[in-house]
Amino acid sequence: MLRNSHDIRTGNRPHVLVVSALCLGAALAFWSSAYADDGYAEYRDQFEPLPALPPIPADNSLTPERVELGNMLFFEPRISSSGVISCATCHNPALGWSDRIPRAVGHDGQVGERNTPTVLNSGFFTAQFWDGRAETLEEQALGPIEAEVEMAMSLEEAIARLGEFDIYHKRFAEAFPEDEDPINADNVAMALAGFQRTLNTPNSRFDRYLKGDLGAISEQEKRGMKNFADSGCVACHSGPALTDSQFYRIQVPGSEDLGRYLVTGEQADRFAFKTPTLRNIGLTYPYMNNGATETLGEAVEIMGQEMLGREYSSEEVADMVAFLHTLTGEMPSFEIPALP
Amino acid sequence: MLRNSHDIRTGNRPHVLVVSALCLGAALAFWSSAYADDGYAEYRDQFEPLPALPPIPADNSLTPERVELGNMLFFEPRISSSGVISCATCHNPALGWSDRIPRAVGHDGQVGERNTPTVLNSGFFTAQFWDGRAETLEEQALGPIEAEVEMAMSLEEAIARLGEFDIYHKRFAEAFPEDEDPINADNVAMALAGFQRTLNTPNSRFDRYLKGDLGAISEQEKRGMKNFADSGCVACHSGPALTDSQFYRIQVPGSEDLGRYLVTGEQADRFAFKTPTLRNIGLTYPYMNNGATETLGEAVEIMGQEMLGREYSSEEVADMVAFLHTLTGEMPSFEIPALP
Repeated sequence: MLRNSHDIRTGNRPHVLVVSALCLGAALAFWSSAYADDGYAEYRDQFEPLPALPPIPADNSLTPERVELGNMLFFEPRISSSGVISCATCHNPALGWSDRIPRAVGHDGQVGERNTPTVLNSGFFTAQFWDGRAETLEEQALGPIEAEVEMAMSLEEAIARLGEFDIYHKRFAEAFPEDEDPINADNVAMALAGFQRTLNTPNSRFDRYLKGDLGAISEQEKRGMKNFADSGCVACHSGPALTDSQFYRIQVPGSEDLGRYLVTGEQADRFAFKTPTLRNIGLTYPYMNNGATETLGEAVEIMGQEMLGREYSSEEVADMVAFLHTLTGEMPSFEIPALP
Repeated sequence: MLRNSHDIRTGNRPHVLVVSALCLGAALAFWSSAYADDGYAEYRDQFEPLPALPPIPADNSLTPERVELGNMLFFEPRISSSGVISCATCHNPALGWSDRIPRAVGHDGQVGERNTPTVLNSGFFTAQFWDGRAETLEEQALGPIEAEVEMAMSLEEAIARLGEFDIYHKRFAEAFPEDEDPINADNVAMALAGFQRTLNTPNSRFDRYLKGDLGAISEQEKRGMKNFADSGCVACHSGPALTDSQFYRIQVPGSEDLGRYLVTGEQADRFAFKTPTLRNIGLTYPYMNNGATETLGEAVEIMGQEMLGREYSSEEVADMVAFLHTLTGEMPSFEIPALP
C-alpha cells in the first residue's frame, strides 16, 4: 500500500504536469489560431497551395538528363520546317511562357485559331490543349511540331534533323540509357514533358497566405478570394493550379470555335473548352480561347455572365482582379541552352 | 679630390649594382622568353586578344540602366508587326546569337537575301550589316525592326506599342534621365546598341594563348594560325574581332547579290561584302553572305580560291579549321527579361 500510495503520489505528479501542459497548450493553440485568423478561414480552406513539382508519371522518371535534354529541345528551332520556330517562340519565357498576342502566330506567319496557353504548371493538368485532345504532357508535346500552322515539320524529319548532331546522340543516350536507338519521337516527347514538369511557379503571395502567412495578401485580395469562392468560380478553378482540367460550354465574344466537339464529336461538347489555369493569370493576357479579351476585369465579367449567370459589381470585379494577381508565383529557373 | 674619389668609390657602387641587376634581368627575361617560346612568336604577334568591352562612344554611355533596357528590347516581340519576332528570333542566344540557317526567316516566313550575322562582338566592328549600310550599332539597331522581311513594323508604331506599358516609361526614364519624352526611336537604338556592346566573348583558347598561355592551343592549331597569317588571311581578318570592317569583292557559290554596290552605287563595290568576324566562327555556321557554305572546311577552301587565288592542301585546311575553332570564347551572361 505504502508503495502504491507512494507510486500514486510521486508517480502521478508527472502525469498531472503533462495533462496540465497539454491543456494549456491546446488552449494556447486555440487562442492563438483564433487570434491569428483573419476571418477568411472557410474560404481559404477551399484552395490548395501549389507544390514545387506536379505528379511524376511512373513511366517517365524526372531525371536531370531528361530535363536537360527537354530544355534543349524546347529551345530547338531546327525541328520546325522554317528552322526558326521552337516551342519557346510561342511559349516565350520572357512573356510568362506564352506569347501575349490573341492567337498564336506560327509557320509562315499563319495565325492559329486559339490563344497560346502558358506551359507554366501544365504538369498539374490532367487534360492538355484548350480542347483536351491530349491528356498528358507526353501526348501533348509532339502536336505543335507537326501542326501545319505551328512548326510544320513531320516527326520523321524532326528526328532526322536531331540525328545530324553528335551532341544529341550523346544526350539522348544519357537520358534514355536503356534504348538502343534513343533518338525517336517518343523520347522527344518524354524529354519535353520532363522539362515542362519543372516549369512551376510556387510561392506566390497566395501560396504564402494559404500556408499561414495571413499578411501575405491584402484585405481587398481576401475579399476577392471570398467572392471567387462564394460565387462559384472555385467549382471549376479548383486544385493547386486552379483548374479541374474539365470542359465547359462557353461562347466568349468573337468565338465560333466548336472546341472539344472537334475532338469528341459529342453534341454536348460543342463550344466546350478546358478550364484554364489561373496561376500567373496576371502575366498571361490576353484571355479566353480566342484571346479576344484583353483585361482581367473583362475576363471576370464575362465569366460571371457566361458561366454563373450574374453581373458582378465593379467593386466585386476589382476585388477579384486583385485576388487573381496574387496568383503570380516565382518564375522557374532554366538555362538558355547552347545548342549544337 | 678626396671627396670626389670618395664620391666615385662609394657613389658608383650602387650604380654598378643597378646596372648589373638590369643586365641580369634582361638576360633572364631573354632566356626565359626564348625558353618559353613555342617558335610561333612572329605569327602570334600578328593577332590581338579580344578585350572584355569594345570602344564605348562618347554619346552613348554604357550605363546599367541602358544595358538593362536594351536587354528587354532585344527580346521584345511586340515591336514586330506579327507580335512574335524579336531581335533574339534571328540573333538567338541558343545558337551563337545567330540562327544557323542559310538566310534569315522573318515576317510571315519570308526568307531574306543574306545570312544572319552574329551580334557577338559586333561592338568591335566599324561597319555593320554585310554591306556596311550602317557604321555604328546605334545606326544599325532600328533597321531590322522596319525591314519588311524581318520585323516589318514602322518605328512610329513600335514606339507607340512600347508607350502602352508603364514599365517602359519607367525604364526609358531611368536610362535617359535627361530626356523629357524618353520613349523614342533614338533611345531604342541607343539602348539596343548598349546591350549589344556587352555581348562579347573574351577568353577563348586563342586569347589565352595570345596572353602567354602557350599550351592553350595545340600544335595543329598553331600550324593553322601560322598558315592563316602566312597565306594572307590576316590582312583582312585583323584586329581583336578578326575583321577589318572593310569591303572586298567576292562571289561565293550561288550568290548574285551585288552587296555593297547597293549602298554606294560604285561599280568597284559590285559584289563587295564586309569581312565577317571570325570570332566564334565554329558556332555561326552556315557561312558566307548567302549562307550557302555549310562547313568551315569549305569556307576555308573558298576563301583561299576567291580571295587569295590558291588551293590549300587538305592538311592546310584541317589545320586552319582547327585554328578557327580556338576562336570560340566565353558566351556573355545575360538575363531573359521578364517583359511587361
